[in-house]
Amino acid sequence: MTNNTKDALDAIFRPKSVVVIGASNKLTSWGFSIFHNILLGGFTEKRNLYAVNPNPQQILGRRTFSRVIDIPDEIDLGIIAVRASMVPRVMEDLAEKGIQGVIIISSGFSEAGKKKEEENLVRIARKGNMRIVGPNGMGIFSAPANLNALMSWVVPVPGPISCISQSGNIGTILLRQGIVTGVGFRYYVSSGNEADLRVEDYLKYFAEDDGTKSIMVYLESVRNGEQFIKVAQNVSKEKPVIVLKGGKTPAGARATQSHTGSLAGERSIYEAAFNQTGLIQAASIDELFELGVNVAFKPLPQGKNVGIISVGGGWAVLASDACQLEGLNVPTLHNDLIKEINEFLPPYWPKNNPIDTVALFDPSAFEKLLKLLLRQTYIDGVLLLGLGGYGFYPKYLAHSPFISEEDVKRVTLFAEMETHLVKAILKAEEFFRKPILVVSILPFLSKATKVLTERGHLPFFNPESAARCFAKLVKYSRYLDKLKRTNQSISHLTQETH
Amino acid sequence: MTNNTKDALDAIFRPKSVVVIGASNKLTSWGFSIFHNILLGGFTEKRNLYAVNPNPQQILGRRTFSRVIDIPDEIDLGIIAVRASMVPRVMEDLAEKGIQGVIIISSGFSEAGKKKEEENLVRIARKGNMRIVGPNGMGIFSAPANLNALMSWVVPVPGPISCISQSGNIGTILLRQGIVTGVGFRYYVSSGNEADLRVEDYLKYFAEDDGTKSIMVYLESVRNGEQFIKVAQNVSKEKPVIVLKGGKTPAGARATQSHTGSLAGERSIYEAAFNQTGLIQAASIDELFELGVNVAFKPLPQGKNVGIISVGGGWAVLASDACQLEGLNVPTLHNDLIKEINEFLPPYWPKNNPIDTVALFDPSAFEKLLKLLLRQTYIDGVLLLGLGGYGFYPKYLAHSPFISEEDVKRVTLFAEMETHLVKAILKAEEFFRKPILVVSILPFLSKATKVLTERGHLPFFNPESAARCFAKLVKYSRYLDKLKRTNQSISHLTQETH
Repeated sequence: MTNNTKDALDAIFRPKSVVVIGASNKLTSWGFSIFHNILLGGFTEKRNLYAVNPNPQQILGRRTFSRVIDIPDEIDLGIIAVRASMVPRVMEDLAEKGIQGVIIISSGFSEAGKKKEEENLVRIARKGNMRIVGPNGMGIFSAPANLNALMSWVVPVPGPISCISQSGNIGTILLRQGIVTGVGFRYYVSSGNEADLRVEDYLKYFAEDDGTKSIMVYLESVRNGEQFIKVAQNVSKEKPVIVLKGGKTPAGARATQSHTGSLAGERSIYEAAFNQTGLIQAASIDELFELGVNVAFKPLPQGKNVGIISVGGGWAVLASDACQLEGLNVPTLHNDLIKEINEFLPPYWPKNNPIDTVALFDPSAFEKLLKLLLRQTYIDGVLLLGLGGYGFYPKYLAHSPFISEEDVKRVTLFAEMETHLVKAILKAEEFFRKPILVVSILPFLSKATKVLTERGHLPFFNPESAARCFAKLVKYSRYLDKLKRTNQSISHLTQETH
Repeated sequence: MTNNTKDALDAIFRPKSVVVIGASNKLTSWGFSIFHNILLGGFTEKRNLYAVNPNPQQILGRRTFSRVIDIPDEIDLGIIAVRASMVPRVMEDLAEKGIQGVIIISSGFSEAGKKKEEENLVRIARKGNMRIVGPNGMGIFSAPANLNALMSWVVPVPGPISCISQSGNIGTILLRQGIVTGVGFRYYVSSGNEADLRVEDYLKYFAEDDGTKSIMVYLESVRNGEQFIKVAQNVSKEKPVIVLKGGKTPAGARATQSHTGSLAGERSIYEAAFNQTGLIQAASIDELFELGVNVAFKPLPQGKNVGIISVGGGWAVLASDACQLEGLNVPTLHNDLIKEINEFLPPYWPKNNPIDTVALFDPSAFEKLLKLLLRQTYIDGVLLLGLGGYGFYPKYLAHSPFISEEDVKRVTLFAEMETHLVKAILKAEEFFRKPILVVSILPFLSKATKVLTERGHLPFFNPESAARCFAKLVKYSRYLDKLKRTNQSISHLTQETH
C-alpha cells in the first residue's frame, strides 16, 4: 500500500475530526441519519464533528457552517450527502481545506449512467490529494474511532470482524446480524461505485490492522482482476477472507449493471480465480456471516473427520447426511472409545458416530463425550446438536398452573448447568485446538447459547449450515497447509543452493 | 383405508377419553410430561383423562388407578409410558378394556435390536382389535380434540398443517418453529418404529381431513415402498405433501439403523420415486417448514416467471441469482409497464426486473408496483424483498437523546403504514391468484411481518430460501397440471369410445 493510500485510509477510518456536508434536521434525509448516527455512536466524546448546511440553523443542537472553509479547525474526513450536481463544488472546498479523506454518499453518478461526472470527482480528488470512498455508498463504521458514519439506521456492535460491501443494503443486513447475535465489527465500508478507493485498498488496510480477525466481502465486480487476485492471495495468507459474489448468473449480472454501474463477470472465471487465492466462498448472506464469525474465533480443523453428538436421532441422521453431502467424513468409532462411552451412556446408546445421546440430557455426560471425542486422532472437530433448550423450559413450566415453584427452580437449575456446559465447550475447543460447532435446538438464542455469542461463537440453527461451515473451514485449512508446505520446500531449496 | 383403521385413527386423534399408563409426578419422566401436556392443552375441559400408576397416589391433583381395567368408564385411547418389559402386560389390560387406540412411547424394541418383542406387541394388538402408534414415538397432537399428548415440553399452536415425523426430535423442532412463527398444526404424530400403523395410514387419514391444508413428512424409511408410492400419489393429487428424507447418504443411513431400527434406501431410488408421486421434496427442516406453510396458504404459480421488487440493489442482485440458479426466469419488463412505473418511481430507478425501488420506501408505491406486476401475463408471482424494517426503527429512535417524541411518533406511523401494506399484499395475492413471497429485512419478526404469520403466511429471511420455495411450488403446480391434462384426455377418450 502506498503511503498516500495508507494515510488517506487512516484519515477515513481513524479521523480526529469529521464534517458532514448536507447535515440536516429532516428525519428522512441521509444528511440527518449520518449526522445522528455519528452523535449516537459516541465519536464526539473525544473528537470533533462539524455540520455544513447552507441554511444557517442548529442541527441536533449543534451550530452549522455554510461552507467547509468557514470551519476554524483542521478536518481529516469530509462526508458528502448533498445532491449529485452540488458534489464537485463541495469537493473543491474540501480540497481547499486540505482534507485527506472523502466519503461521497450522494448517488447519481456511474450507476445512473453519469460516468463523466464520476470521473470529474476523481479528477478533483487527485488535484487536491484526496481519496474518495464511494460515490453511491452508505458510509463507514469504525470501532477504533467510535465512528458510526452510516446512512442506515443501525448502531453496529464493536468487535473483531471487518467488512467491505459493494452493496450498502447487504452490508446493513450483515451489521444487523451482528446486532442480533451480539457479534461485532471492527471496520465496515459500503464501498459504493468505487470510483477511487477499491475493494483491494480496503482489503490491504484491514489486513494490516491487528484488531481485525477476519474480513467479509460482498463483491459484485472488480475493476482490475489481476490486482484483486494478487491482493486477495496476499491477504488470505495472513487473515481469512470470505467472499459472497453477487451477479453469478445472467439475471443477477443484469441487476448489478444498474446497481453499481459496472458489469459483473463470468461465474466460472470468478470461482476458478477465487479457488487459487484461498478466498473462502459463501453462497448467501447468512453463510457469509456464519463463516466470517466462525473463522475469526475457531481453530481450523486439520482434516475432514467429524464427530457428531446429538440429543435426538433424527438430527443425528440429518447431520450425517449433511456432512457427507459436503464431502466430510463421519468416521466410525474405535472399540476402545465405545467401551469408554459405555461407562456413562445408557446401554441402548447406538455405539456409533453420530452419537445419539438417546434423549439423555446430562451436561456432565456431554462434557465427557466431547473431551473423549476430541482426544481421538481420527476426529478433527465436533458438531454438537441440541443445546439451548433448557433456557426455554423454565418459561414453559412457569406458565403451568400444575407446577410448583420449586419444580420451576429445578429446571432453572438445568438451564444454569447448560450455561456451565457451554463454557466447558469453549475451554475444550481451546485446549484441543479443534473446532466445535454448536447447533441450537431452538430457533432463537437461549441463555446458554447467548454465552456463545458473547464470546463471539455463533451457534447454528440447523445441522446443514454447521456442516457447510465445517467443510469450508477444512478447505481453507488445507489451502494454508499447502501454502506452508510449498513455502517450506522453497526455503529448503533456497538453503541448499546457498 | 379400511373401516377398522379409520375407526382406530379416530380413537387416537379424536378420543373422548384417554388413559396414561405410567403417569407420574417425577418432573423428568415421560409419564409426567405427557400427562402434564394433556392437562395443559385443555383436553380435560370437555373430555376425560385418567392416570394409571401401580403406586396409589395423586398425580397433578388427579387420582390414579393401579390398572386400566379398574377405571369405571369407557376409554378410546391408551398412552403407554412404562418400561419396555412391562408393555405387553399393559397391552393385555388395554385389550381387556376394549380400547381401540394405543400410543406406545416406551422405547427398547426394534430400534434396540428387540424385533421379537416388537412383533409380540403387534400380536397382542391384533388379537385385541387395537391399533398401535409407535413404539419409540414421542406421542401425538390433535387440534380438533385439544389433545397435546407429547412427551416433549412443547405446546403446539393449532392450525391447518398436519405432520408425520419418523423422528420425535425433528417433529418437535417443527412444532417449535410453529410456536415461534405463530403458524399452527392440525394433527401431528411422532410415528416411532411404525410396528403397526405406518406413515401411509396417517397420510390417508390426514388427507381425508377437511381441516388439513398441507402435510409435512419427515421420512427415514418405508416398509412397503409400492404401497407408500400409491398412497402418496393419491394424496398429493388432493393435498400438497412435503417430504424431508433422512438417511440420503451412507453416513445418514447408518445413523437411521440405530434410530428407528430399519434400513434407509438408496437416495436415487427415493428421489426418482418421489418425483413420480408429486411429493414436494425438502432438503432441510427449515425448508420442510417453509414449503409446508406456504403451499398451505398461497395460490400456486402457473409458470416460472418471477417479478422481483427490492428495497436494495444488493438484494435485488442476489435474488436474481437465486431465481436463476433455481431454474426460474426473471423476465425483462415490457415498455408499457416501464412507462407506468416511471410515473411514480424516482427517474433513476433501473427500469428493469428486478425492480430496485432505489431506497424509496413509500408503502403506496410498493402497493402500486405489486399490482402492476401481478397484472402482467408474463409474471407468475412476486418476490418482495425488504419489508419489516419499520417495526424496528421506532425503537432505534426512542433510544436516542437527540430525537423528539414527535419524530418517534412519525416513524411509528411508518410502521403502521407498513402493517397496512402487508394487508394489501395479502389482498392482492388473493385477487390475482399469484403467490407473493415476502422477504423480511430484519432477521426476526416485526409488527408488519407478524401480520403475515398471523394469517399463516410465512415471511422469509433471505432471498435464497424464497427463490427455492417458489421453484418448488412451480414444480408441484406443473405436476398437478400435467395430471389434469392426462385425466382430461383419458376422460375424453372414454367419452369417444362410449
